[in-house]
Amino acid sequence: MNKPFHLGLDVGGTNLAAAVIDSRFNILSRASIPAGAGRSIEAITDDMAKVSILAVERAGISMEDVAGWGIGMPSCVNARTNLLVHANCFGWHNVPIYDYLRGKLPLDVKIDNDANCAALGEALAGAARGHENALMLTLGTGVGGGIILDGKIYAGADGMGAELGHSKLVFEGERCTCGQKGCLEAYCSATALQRDAARAGFEGDARAVFDAAKSGNPVAEGLVDRYIAYLAAGLSTFITIFRPEIIILGGGVAAAGDRLFVPLREKMCECTFGAEEIGLPPVIPALLGNDAGLVGAAFLF
Amino acid sequence: MNKPFHLGLDVGGTNLAAAVIDSRFNILSRASIPAGAGRSIEAITDDMAKVSILAVERAGISMEDVAGWGIGMPSCVNARTNLLVHANCFGWHNVPIYDYLRGKLPLDVKIDNDANCAALGEALAGAARGHENALMLTLGTGVGGGIILDGKIYAGADGMGAELGHSKLVFEGERCTCGQKGCLEAYCSATALQRDAARAGFEGDARAVFDAAKSGNPVAEGLVDRYIAYLAAGLSTFITIFRPEIIILGGGVAAAGDRLFVPLREKMCECTFGAEEIGLPPVIPALLGNDAGLVGAAFLF
Repeated sequence: MNKPFHLGLDVGGTNLAAAVIDSRFNILSRASIPAGAGRSIEAITDDMAKVSILAVERAGISMEDVAGWGIGMPSCVNARTNLLVHANCFGWHNVPIYDYLRGKLPLDVKIDNDANCAALGEALAGAARGHENALMLTLGTGVGGGIILDGKIYAGADGMGAELGHSKLVFEGERCTCGQKGCLEAYCSATALQRDAARAGFEGDARAVFDAAKSGNPVAEGLVDRYIAYLAAGLSTFITIFRPEIIILGGGVAAAGDRLFVPLREKMCECTFGAEEIGLPPVIPALLGNDAGLVGAAFLF
Repeated sequence: MNKPFHLGLDVGGTNLAAAVIDSRFNILSRASIPAGAGRSIEAITDDMAKVSILAVERAGISMEDVAGWGIGMPSCVNARTNLLVHANCFGWHNVPIYDYLRGKLPLDVKIDNDANCAALGEALAGAARGHENALMLTLGTGVGGGIILDGKIYAGADGMGAELGHSKLVFEGERCTCGQKGCLEAYCSATALQRDAARAGFEGDARAVFDAAKSGNPVAEGLVDRYIAYLAAGLSTFITIFRPEIIILGGGVAAAGDRLFVPLREKMCECTFGAEEIGLPPVIPALLGNDAGLVGAAFLF
C-alpha cells in the first residue's frame, strides 16, 4: 500500500496530460497528447491509458511502484451509479467510465472532478499547503469549486456535490451555462465579467477589464468593483457554511493580483456573517497553476 | 465508554430543559426550569446543572451510567478559542463557558449549536432516521440550519460554521437580524414572511398567511408562492454543495404541510442544478418537534 510514486491524469477537452509525482510532490515526468474530442469513448480512454503509460516510462519507474491511477475530469462520477454523469467537452453522458478504464493499466482507478483535484493539489503542495480545511475557486471560463475537509476532497454524499459555481448568488438572476438562473458562475467567471463589460460598452476580455481598471479607466473600475462585490458575496456564503482555514483563488481572473485581492478582502469583511467577531480566513492566489489538478489527481491515492 | 444513558440539555432564552434518553432514543425523564435570562453567568450555569441533575434523579439512574453532558444552545463554541461566541438570549459574548460548567456534574461536557443538535436528533431518531447525510432547516423566528455528514454534525473547520440561515440568497437584499444583507433568514423565516405580508397589506403571522393561502386568498397565495420560491432557491444551493440524502424542514412554517411541501418540491425541481439528471433528495417535515434539539444534544456523546 505504501508505493512511492503517484500517477495523475488531467483530462481536458483539448489535451490529456499525465504526470508521475513522488511523495514530496516533485513532478518526475510528464506526457501530453491531444484529447481528440469527438472520437469514440473507447478511443479516448485508450489514449488516456497510453499517455499515462508514457509518463510512467519517462519517469523510469515500474508500474509496481505506482500507488494508483488518479484521474481528474471536468465531470463527476455518481457514487451511487458509478456513472460519469456529464463530460460536456466530449459530449459524454452517463458513461460507465470505470468499465472502459479497468484493466487498461495494472492499477486501481479513481476519478474525481478536476476542480476538486485542483483544490486537493493546492492543499497538499500549493497555496494551502499545511491546511486540512481549504476552499478553492477557479475563476476561468466557468467557476470550478473544490472543498478540502480534514485533508480530503469533499464531494457531497453521492460524489456529485460541492458544485460551488452553481450555488445561487442572485435570486432569479442571470442565466447560467447550466440552464439555471443566478449561479455564482454567471457572475464570477471570466466570461461573466466579459459579458458585463460588453453591456457597459467596454470591448475586451476579463484580463483587459482588469488591466484597464488598473490604469484608472472609470468604466472598467466600476465593472471590476461590481465583479468583486459578487465574488465577495459568494465567498461569504461558503465561509458561513464551511469556515475554511484558507481560501485559494485560481484561474485566469486570479492572475489580476492586488487589484482583485485587496478590495476583495475588504468587501468580504463588510459582507460576511460574523466577520468582525470571528475573523475571516486568508484569501490568496493559487500557486500551482495548471499543475494543481494533475497533482490532486495523482494524490487521489 | 459504553454507558447506557444519555443526558441532554436544551438551553433557550425562556427555559432550560433536560432529559435522560436511552440508547434506543426513548426519553426516560424530563426536567425544565425557567432560564432566568438577565442573571449572572454563574447563576444560569448553576441552574443548567441543577435541572440536569433533576432529570437524572427522575430517571432513577446513577450519574455513572450517563455517557456525558450534551448541551444545545442558540450559540456556538469557537473550537479554536473554546469561547461561546454569542448567546443573544442571555446577552453573552465570548464566554469561557466550559470553565463555568466543568465540575458542576461528574461528566464530560460538550456544547453545540441548537440547530445542529436538532439536525442530529432528527437524523438519529426522527424524520431522517437511517440517513448518514442529512440537512435540516428550522423555519421559525429565524432560520436555523444543521448538516449531518457521515452521521455526525458538520460545523465547519472551527465549529462556527454551517450557519445556513446566513448564507446569501439575494445579492444586496433585505437586511438580516445579523446585520448583513440578503441572508436566507431574511427571506425564509416566519418573521420574513410576516414582514412581506405586512408590506402587501395582509395582517397576520406566517401561519395566518398559509391558512389564508389554503382558503384561496389571492394576496396570501402570492406571498406563499414567493416564500416558496425563495426557500427552493436556498435549498437548491445546499443540495448543489452537499447532495444530502434527505432534507428535513422543522419550525413553525413546516407545520403548513402540503401547501408548503408540494409546490416546494416542484419549484426545487425547476431551480436546482442537475435536478433532472441526478435527481433531488426528498424534502420532508421534521418529526420530533422541540425534542429534536434535546435528543441531538444528548447524543453529542
